[in-house]
Amino acid sequence: MSSKIRLGILGGGGDSLIGVLHRVASAMFDQYQIVGGVFNPVWEENIGFVKSIGLPTNRVYKDFDTLIEEEVKLPESERMQVVSVLTPNFLHFPMAKKLLENGFNVICEKPMTTTYEEAKILRQTLQMSNKIFAVTYTYTGYPMIRQMKEMISRGDIGKVQKIDAQYYQGWINPIIHDKEKRANTWRLDPEKSGISCCIGDIGTHAFDMIEYVTELKVESVLSDLNYMYSDNKMDVDGTVLIRCSDNVKGVIRTSQIATGEENNFTVQIYGEKAGLKWEQENPNHLYLLEDGKPLRVLKPGHTYNSELSLDGTKLPPGHPEGIFDSMGNIYRGIAKAIKKEEFDSAEFPTIVDGVRGMSFIEKAVESHQKGNVWIKIDA
Amino acid sequence: MSSKIRLGILGGGGDSLIGVLHRVASAMFDQYQIVGGVFNPVWEENIGFVKSIGLPTNRVYKDFDTLIEEEVKLPESERMQVVSVLTPNFLHFPMAKKLLENGFNVICEKPMTTTYEEAKILRQTLQMSNKIFAVTYTYTGYPMIRQMKEMISRGDIGKVQKIDAQYYQGWINPIIHDKEKRANTWRLDPEKSGISCCIGDIGTHAFDMIEYVTELKVESVLSDLNYMYSDNKMDVDGTVLIRCSDNVKGVIRTSQIATGEENNFTVQIYGEKAGLKWEQENPNHLYLLEDGKPLRVLKPGHTYNSELSLDGTKLPPGHPEGIFDSMGNIYRGIAKAIKKEEFDSAEFPTIVDGVRGMSFIEKAVESHQKGNVWIKIDA
Amino acid sequence: MSSKIRLGILGGGGDSLIGVLHRVASAMFDQYQIVGGVFNPVWEENIGFVKSIGLPTNRVYKDFDTLIEEEVKLPESERMQVVSVLTPNFLHFPMAKKLLENGFNVICEKPMTTTYEEAKILRQTLQMSNKIFAVTYTYTGYPMIRQMKEMISRGDIGKVQKIDAQYYQGWINPIIHDKEKRANTWRLDPEKSGISCCIGDIGTHAFDMIEYVTELKVESVLSDLNYMYSDNKMDVDGTVLIRCSDNVKGVIRTSQIATGEENNFTVQIYGEKAGLKWEQENPNHLYLLEDGKPLRVLKPGHTYNSELSLDGTKLPPGHPEGIFDSMGNIYRGIAKAIKKEEFDSAEFPTIVDGVRGMSFIEKAVESHQKGNVWIKIDA
Amino acid sequence: MSSKIRLGILGGGGDSLIGVLHRVASAMFDQYQIVGGVFNPVWEENIGFVKSIGLPTNRVYKDFDTLIEEEVKLPESERMQVVSVLTPNFLHFPMAKKLLENGFNVICEKPMTTTYEEAKILRQTLQMSNKIFAVTYTYTGYPMIRQMKEMISRGDIGKVQKIDAQYYQGWINPIIHDKEKRANTWRLDPEKSGISCCIGDIGTHAFDMIEYVTELKVESVLSDLNYMYSDNKMDVDGTVLIRCSDNVKGVIRTSQIATGEENNFTVQIYGEKAGLKWEQENPNHLYLLEDGKPLRVLKPGHTYNSELSLDGTKLPPGHPEGIFDSMGNIYRGIAKAIKKEEFDSAEFPTIVDGVRGMSFIEKAVESHQKGNVWIKIDA
Repeated sequence: MSSKIRLGILGGGGDSLIGVLHRVASAMFDQYQIVGGVFNPVWEENIGFVKSIGLPTNRVYKDFDTLIEEEVKLPESERMQVVSVLTPNFLHFPMAKKLLENGFNVICEKPMTTTYEEAKILRQTLQMSNKIFAVTYTYTGYPMIRQMKEMISRGDIGKVQKIDAQYYQGWINPIIHDKEKRANTWRLDPEKSGISCCIGDIGTHAFDMIEYVTELKVESVLSDLNYMYSDNKMDVDGTVLIRCSDNVKGVIRTSQIATGEENNFTVQIYGEKAGLKWEQENPNHLYLLEDGKPLRVLKPGHTYNSELSLDGTKLPPGHPEGIFDSMGNIYRGIAKAIKKEEFDSAEFPTIVDGVRGMSFIEKAVESHQKGNVWIKIDA
Repeated sequence: MSSKIRLGILGGGGDSLIGVLHRVASAMFDQYQIVGGVFNPVWEENIGFVKSIGLPTNRVYKDFDTLIEEEVKLPESERMQVVSVLTPNFLHFPMAKKLLENGFNVICEKPMTTTYEEAKILRQTLQMSNKIFAVTYTYTGYPMIRQMKEMISRGDIGKVQKIDAQYYQGWINPIIHDKEKRANTWRLDPEKSGISCCIGDIGTHAFDMIEYVTELKVESVLSDLNYMYSDNKMDVDGTVLIRCSDNVKGVIRTSQIATGEENNFTVQIYGEKAGLKWEQENPNHLYLLEDGKPLRVLKPGHTYNSELSLDGTKLPPGHPEGIFDSMGNIYRGIAKAIKKEEFDSAEFPTIVDGVRGMSFIEKAVESHQKGNVWIKIDA
Repeated sequence: MSSKIRLGILGGGGDSLIGVLHRVASAMFDQYQIVGGVFNPVWEENIGFVKSIGLPTNRVYKDFDTLIEEEVKLPESERMQVVSVLTPNFLHFPMAKKLLENGFNVICEKPMTTTYEEAKILRQTLQMSNKIFAVTYTYTGYPMIRQMKEMISRGDIGKVQKIDAQYYQGWINPIIHDKEKRANTWRLDPEKSGISCCIGDIGTHAFDMIEYVTELKVESVLSDLNYMYSDNKMDVDGTVLIRCSDNVKGVIRTSQIATGEENNFTVQIYGEKAGLKWEQENPNHLYLLEDGKPLRVLKPGHTYNSELSLDGTKLPPGHPEGIFDSMGNIYRGIAKAIKKEEFDSAEFPTIVDGVRGMSFIEKAVESHQKGNVWIKIDA
Repeated sequence: MSSKIRLGILGGGGDSLIGVLHRVASAMFDQYQIVGGVFNPVWEENIGFVKSIGLPTNRVYKDFDTLIEEEVKLPESERMQVVSVLTPNFLHFPMAKKLLENGFNVICEKPMTTTYEEAKILRQTLQMSNKIFAVTYTYTGYPMIRQMKEMISRGDIGKVQKIDAQYYQGWINPIIHDKEKRANTWRLDPEKSGISCCIGDIGTHAFDMIEYVTELKVESVLSDLNYMYSDNKMDVDGTVLIRCSDNVKGVIRTSQIATGEENNFTVQIYGEKAGLKWEQENPNHLYLLEDGKPLRVLKPGHTYNSELSLDGTKLPPGHPEGIFDSMGNIYRGIAKAIKKEEFDSAEFPTIVDGVRGMSFIEKAVESHQKGNVWIKIDA
């Protein structure tokens, strides 16, 4: 009998990429054992997939409600301890809510919900449940992001005075200029994707990252979005001016029509004493800039890094780790929390990140619609 | 008797860096001979400097008015053909104006004037003078910037759909947090530097560069500036949302408190077919991004570059050229114009750039002061 | 009952880094289930470790011989299908040999054996066994290395004419200058590590990589090694001139006293039509150099990559994968081979790589000892 | 009357690239005035060129002998003070010799002579002349190379223990595979280019650079050259193992068939305390590597640089300078020496560099011809 954490999975079947990411991440630190789930709404595909990945089929359920029903019947020592929700966005909220209500810990893909309203309800549900809840903003698990957070927190760069985050992709470019394609992509359909495409999908990553590394709160936003065509209902590009407490200003720049860009997410934080820069596509380098001193490039695995950063590095310096390792670190933090039933919010994103992210999306869209005016973040 | 263009210089004496830049640039293509000027307002320093750089002293004048007076007496074949104005900013306008009125071609450092009003007057003066007038936005002389312009112009990236320029420096950081220092720096004194520090000094470079490479006109701006302290009267950081014709949106990001940054000026232009990126601190690389194709890195001196770009490269690929070479290319374009008495506006920045730059500064400041609202560029 | 491949593991317990690497790699494509092994020679640590990673303890054995004895008693449908040998180097040979003789497939860490003689014996054992045997030269699993191999193989760079591989580390620097430390490091003790340190440990990686990507065979070597101190018996640095068939010359440069280097392994291959370059510390970039054309940077996950490369990429472009993913690709290739009982030698390193690697080590040392003369590779 | 140093030039007319490089370099610090020379052996082209670059024609001579004859007649206060020899290689020796014998300071392009024998004669001539003699190994003028030299000299990296220099170009690739082209290129004709192509042209740069930055002397060499075709008489690629005093080993790698490479010259020096790396194509970055510390990137113009490095930087950090600036620094050093009639050998390469470079070429070729054996450097 394995003593690993019993993990259930909702969604992520077939050739789902997010499914691979979560499965590998869960295996990385020998903490979890996938015991079952609902990987696909169609039974044949559900069971076929489970066989294809070589898992036992006895706890694969025909649907989510059945999973809940059957799992709660099991003795606590066999029951799933945590369930990862990897289903389409609109299902995150009802599934996460019901899981919490039935006593399961939850790992939820982002966006956590489709509206800020739902997010607040989920927060309330969680408060009553006393369970662990994580939202998988994958990038916060990178060792050099954790190092960045620690350096800012302990004052290495002094008081933050300037924030700039970029998240540029190009994948909507081949879609947006084709009338038919843009009408038929689910990501550009508000029914399926909520009120925002670009801000909702990648802007929230940038927003969450800023709050994660600086430990500041974004207080208000002024955005200028771009829809490109009058018949397109969802933003595919947007620049958001931000203001934090203490006169800290900044900008979040996002695009899905930055032609040729892959997943170019960068964070630049400047303080009174130094600046720090990081690029997701080269995630093992953290740049430290100081007035009149040589640029320094910090890398994972060195003893000069903080404990939090070192925790997330498995091999010695020079052995590059990537995005699977970043997600693995988040799963590891969640495992610690489940085992201890307490946790350090630096180790994985929580309901706070999820709720604030939903408020950010709604306020950024509202700012644009009202003519590029300042709107306060609510949460 | 040399047959080079006779160049006079105003300012740039002592250990002026801008003086070195212009002198070297003027020498680069064997086109100019420095025949005299006023290098310093104090006579001893003026004449001492001229001796220290080994120039003849016979046409070093005690002041600007004397220079005009004496030079116009000379036969046309001996008279200065062009005068470079490298004096403090507030002198650019009166000197450039009087030079044009007296029949001299003018090379003027940026900012061209201290107000938009002056800029328009200067434009009028120029129209009546039939002389060559250049504003030295140095960076537009880089070979890969010229290549970028040509590629966009001939449609290599398709219709432009997204613009992003960054100009980050950190040099004001050690000044701004010290009450005494910030009170006594001329760059932060509106009397000496006009209405803007950061936008005026570096924002204009970004603005001009965008219009140079895309051949679009920025139509309106919405800016959020940062003054950091209530007793500081000049912006030291600012983000400017921009809108161009044809639904093209973008952002200009500038800072002089981006601690540790040196001269980090970058331009990213994305079109329907491809994206182009360039970084001033690594000026010999031009990045071409296309959907689903390998990233391409173009470098100077290759036959795949345009004629305009190749003109500005003196050595074969792999021999890095720098900012002196960029300014040299601008001087070369001016020399061609002086000799032909006609010119290609791609080869050096003109009065149009100067006037529009001044409008940009005033409108960016106005936008901020009115509460971050959209203001139209006038020129 | 899981339908995954049943994997046993020898060694890799405690805080072994190589243990983590193999466990994660085995999990990456849902192909393997770790069913048991001997993780540590001390029973308490062996069983303690297994519990700490949450595995069932019923097939953890007290030693290697017991493992063989007990596993062969199991029905074929339960027996370990493959065993990974992660023990100290001198145990690789006897364990791998006995495993093959008892009908197990084997995954063996490098160096495969401690002598070329042993390597040849193992090759013979394998030939009689009809089993799958892999040596884990980790780096050959990187997607862009696989792309490099395919491009060279299909003629993209024309006939190869110049080879240069570098493997520079600095970790022995703090040891070598301290008489006591260098006397007591097992890596510098021929009893424990064989006849070579630097060539044996990292030179073989470079040698194998060259043969992997070019599909050429290195025919002879001339080496100059560096032992630094007369009381040190093992090379810590060495440059090896190489000659392949068809007049192809090259160089393998290795060092463990390249102070400050982490794991700086690079490969440069130049052909008649183009050049290809790759760097392990930035493994997702493959540089294609052609006369008079822009440099191209190929990245994983794009459809322009070969099938072999794409097989080894789990996420879309811009999501960096690292060394765990590289080893995961090798494990995946081995899984395919085990299931099909046939295999493509491009998907994982085989006995051929292992034998040739051992010959390379011995000949490089011999060349140095004979006064830097050419010695033929035997295998 | 200008008080600049009076410079004469031999060669460098027409569209000679080396001519541009020297003219611009001489102008960079306001130290020289070109007063005449022989720019082309054909009179019409000679005088035509001088007019095209706008110089006075009165001291343009019909040939070298006339130049000497006429210049020595001039009073010392008007006579050329230094002459730059930019003619084809075989003319360097006779011209430089006669110039020294007639009391002129000399700036000589590399290779200084065509044989080591000539080089020694020239050294003797110089000793008797008491004049300044410089060989223009251009790359030693880069600020970060000068910083590297100073850092090694003052012990920042401790005792040097490993040297690696690479100089890879690809320009001969399109020539070497075409029988006719390779037969008709002057660079591959021993009559015109001496005994070596690749080692002679670029290997010497690497050799000189190593001795410049480390202040060590290369004592012996073992080389393996590549001629590619049996009808080709000149090396187009070569790897040279080197040994310096104190057990320091290293390698010089050169190629002109590294397809697609432009001018990829790199230097890596590792010491007991740290390593230093530099790349010519990105010359403003100097990388400092230390065990267990963040990588540091030093850049020009900062006060943390040595005086020698800062001398060679004209603008503040972030304003990239290039190869013209590097040569300008060398010309500046020569100007100082001419004015003081004494000099610091760190500021420009001298006869010592020239003589040792010629010995290196001959010994590297000899080593190859004798079957890749060790040969001592003579000088």
